[in-house]
Amino acid sequence: AALLGSSAPGWIKKQALAPLTVSSVNTASDEVALWPLPQKFQTSVDAFRLSSASFQIVHAKESTAGPSCSLLQNAFRRYYSYIFGNGRKHGKNLENVFDADLAELQVQITSADPECDGYPSLKSDESYQLEVNQPTAVLKAASVWGALRGLETFSQLVYEDDYGGQNINKTSISDFPRFAHRGILLDSSRHYLPLKVILANLEAMAMNKFNVFHWHIVDDQSFPFQSRTFPDLSHKGAYHPYTHVYTPADVKMVIEFARMRGIRVLAEFDSPGHTFSWGKGQTGLLTPCFSGSSPSGTFGPVNPILNSTYDFMTRFFKEVSTVFPDAYIHLGGDEVDFSCWKSNPDIQKFMDQQGFGQDYRKLESYYIQRLLDIVSTTNKGYMVWQEVFDNGVKLKGDTVVEVWMNNNVDKELQNVTGSGFTAILSAPWYLDYISYGQDWKKYYTVEPLNFEGTAEQKKLVIGGEACLWGEYVDATNLTPRLWPRASAVGERLWSDENVKDVGSAYDRLVKHRCRMVRRGIPAEPLYIGFCPHEYSGN
Amino acid sequence: AALLGSSAPGWIKKQALAPLTVSSVNTASDEVALWPLPQKFQTSVDAFRLSSASFQIVHAKESTAGPSCSLLQNAFRRYYSYIFGNGRKHGKNLENVFDADLAELQVQITSADPECDGYPSLKSDESYQLEVNQPTAVLKAASVWGALRGLETFSQLVYEDDYGGQNINKTSISDFPRFAHRGILLDSSRHYLPLKVILANLEAMAMNKFNVFHWHIVDDQSFPFQSRTFPDLSHKGAYHPYTHVYTPADVKMVIEFARMRGIRVLAEFDSPGHTFSWGKGQTGLLTPCFSGSSPSGTFGPVNPILNSTYDFMTRFFKEVSTVFPDAYIHLGGDEVDFSCWKSNPDIQKFMDQQGFGQDYRKLESYYIQRLLDIVSTTNKGYMVWQEVFDNGVKLKGDTVVEVWMNNNVDKELQNVTGSGFTAILSAPWYLDYISYGQDWKKYYTVEPLNFEGTAEQKKLVIGGEACLWGEYVDATNLTPRLWPRASAVGERLWSDENVKDVGSAYDRLVKHRCRMVRRGIPAEPLYIGFCPHEYSGN
Repeated sequence: AALLGSSAPGWIKKQALAPLTVSSVNTASDEVALWPLPQKFQTSVDAFRLSSASFQIVHAKESTAGPSCSLLQNAFRRYYSYIFGNGRKHGKNLENVFDADLAELQVQITSADPECDGYPSLKSDESYQLEVNQPTAVLKAASVWGALRGLETFSQLVYEDDYGGQNINKTSISDFPRFAHRGILLDSSRHYLPLKVILANLEAMAMNKFNVFHWHIVDDQSFPFQSRTFPDLSHKGAYHPYTHVYTPADVKMVIEFARMRGIRVLAEFDSPGHTFSWGKGQTGLLTPCFSGSSPSGTFGPVNPILNSTYDFMTRFFKEVSTVFPDAYIHLGGDEVDFSCWKSNPDIQKFMDQQGFGQDYRKLESYYIQRLLDIVSTTNKGYMVWQEVFDNGVKLKGDTVVEVWMNNNVDKELQNVTGSGFTAILSAPWYLDYISYGQDWKKYYTVEPLNFEGTAEQKKLVIGGEACLWGEYVDATNLTPRLWPRASAVGERLWSDENVKDVGSAYDRLVKHRCRMVRRGIPAEPLYIGFCPHEYSGN
Repeated sequence: AALLGSSAPGWIKKQALAPLTVSSVNTASDEVALWPLPQKFQTSVDAFRLSSASFQIVHAKESTAGPSCSLLQNAFRRYYSYIFGNGRKHGKNLENVFDADLAELQVQITSADPECDGYPSLKSDESYQLEVNQPTAVLKAASVWGALRGLETFSQLVYEDDYGGQNINKTSISDFPRFAHRGILLDSSRHYLPLKVILANLEAMAMNKFNVFHWHIVDDQSFPFQSRTFPDLSHKGAYHPYTHVYTPADVKMVIEFARMRGIRVLAEFDSPGHTFSWGKGQTGLLTPCFSGSSPSGTFGPVNPILNSTYDFMTRFFKEVSTVFPDAYIHLGGDEVDFSCWKSNPDIQKFMDQQGFGQDYRKLESYYIQRLLDIVSTTNKGYMVWQEVFDNGVKLKGDTVVEVWMNNNVDKELQNVTGSGFTAILSAPWYLDYISYGQDWKKYYTVEPLNFEGTAEQKKLVIGGEACLWGEYVDATNLTPRLWPRASAVGERLWSDENVKDVGSAYDRLVKHRCRMVRRGIPAEPLYIGFCPHEYSGN
């Protein structure tokens, strides 16, 4: 029983390429469920067995990558474990290889530079071709980034038969992402997220072909990022200076763990609002609020009128730009509350001098403009929340505007792309909002390009993000709350736009979530039912 | 700083009994947060230290229980671990006992029968008195059930100071539950719940002084209860006959684990509706539905017109009554769909013979009546969902009616108690319904006795239950979804009715949830913030 339809025209659904060769396949292959669905694929009832004793994932002879490519070596081991189970012992090639066995998967990187030691980027080529046939399956990709995606797909094709054996059907896949930016936002300020939780979710992201970890690392409530230049920021601004911080080594580990899975780490240091915790370790950075003619003792957004502010930002972002290798930094710029600025006489004076009148958006823009200029000198691109665009700040051409306000999304996308800027969409995917029932369907049926605009404009929408803000989320509940709800966003951003049938998505997603569970991710159930292997992690 | 207010008249808030003796106490004692709040208590700034090397929990000389009381021995070990941490090594009384040390907690059972080997019941005395003073604290209770509650309270009084030492303030507590039935409903049919999850939640229940585990063990979707008399019920009716069943040994373990914590296991075998899974292993039990004049191949509720049905129920409940030691069995009786009965010509004929006309509620009552008579012969009491009462079934005087429909709750409580039946309330506490934000406040502010009725009627409301139905819940997300939301219900059912200030509840509950986290329960956060020891379980 060939089971997977194709989303692309010209490919035939449920096409049988060859007669059934392994008798137990019929029912077992119904278990195969690819998520997200590849762009083009063809599968068959012709099934091969994988022997845990002899099956190998190897570099193809023609590959430009070899055993020195630790990213792939690491991935080979990881996917071997996913296929055969971590705990399963196996002999050393003691078993014979039978005729019906799939002996190996050859991974062939075709570009001169396989990018083994590089970082994934917005421009990374994640496409791959996968041919599963006897006795050898071949995975081809231009770079390691496509190979990682193909390895995930290969592992999803393998299914267990009734005798506990691993099988795979003859299959042909050509795949590539619809959108280049497929992100998950986690917030480590409202609640500190232990490293273990972050790493587990990077694993889950790879299982869903996400490629950006948007790390909303600091905010009003706490500043867990340990800066070498300004150690007081976390020492005084974190929930706890030792147990609730990310040391430089922690950050490095997150970045490397993500790189190994083809995931960018996009750090966000949001300002001038959302900075209350910054003020604890950096005196004078925030605006003193006034009550009448005297300071009230409370503080508002970053003080935009002092040179010391910009000196601080210059040094701080210089460090940040070296800590985070990604070509982009997210600078925030959302939800600036003007009341404190309004109360402060020095700010008012500055507003007069600059001729801003009473338009505090102009003051905000003034600050952001100077900040962007500072960050530009670090040779980083920047991402910002939509207010920065809305307020008319002058932006570099490669700026990415993140559309998050869930009113007039279409209009906003129209405006941002109409002005020639690239955009990513997160407005419909605020996964911190929970409700009873299957809300994944709501996330799944969003079509990001449903706004009015030219083909050129649509090309400027480079992806989206599922955001799990941290007000109600910490290590206890984050992972089951995020998965498989975010998986719905994952398929929307990877697969063809015509892959949108909720019914067939349900069937695949049920199985995909059980696969995540089996791999140790406590992804919650979609609805009534069971997994052959239930979660046993706690 | 004395920190805990009292809810009872005549007790003075923040009363200092003695001067401060340990300097580090001032801030650290702010960490103490009792949950649920005891009925009467008095505390002081006078603090004592607990040495992990020398502190002991022991049987008082006067106690009617001694080292042969394994329930208490087990509890002493458990609470020692909660206080000093599981992993902490300690010497064998090598340290000196200092003047300011609390040397031991003496537990004194005062009744002739301490009930060490008994099961908790609706009539168990859970009251206790706790006096913490130097050099010995004394916990007095009539039976082990009160001692268990007092041990939990004692452990909650202990707080860690800035040097990692454990301290406790001079305290005097007299406590008892407001309601006798304080339950949690878990549903192991919509999703199978591994034993580990059930046991973890029994632990959490004890931390919140719940005393009934309402085990909605089977339903339409699966029949995981392994019956010795009718093994096909689970073999054919469970999601999987080996991996997704509760063996007799499993059930025994749940019951014993619960008993050790003073928790009753109230098993529910719901009929005549919600029985689809029963039909798989017991041919002829369910009503064949008809399409026109021929059977449609589908099945409805239990077939109430066959003698074989009652023979089966007699044998089945005979087994159930021996497997579950509790004095009550929950027989369900909710949501019976009449359409299948209506379609069946044999049922119609029976209705005519009995003179039921077209009133299928009479047929339902007929079935339930016979079932109740069967169960009565096992000497068990029974609980039923409210429909059974609403439909006018004749009930034994000790029947407990569970009010679950969240419309006209007050009217229903009035009617049930007005008819002289005891009632428990679960309608406002369906915790499977989730929403964004702090819904625990909604659960917390429910007042169960807010209906019009005499004092006699109010006495008939013996408690309530927080219900976590299983449609969207399994091992991956159950525990953080249940806690600390169910804790709100726990305090409502234990503490005085005047304990209802949401603000002070918030402060205590934040700390109580961190305590649960520290004890290994992944209780989710109420809102922004942190725990000194974050969850590290996965």
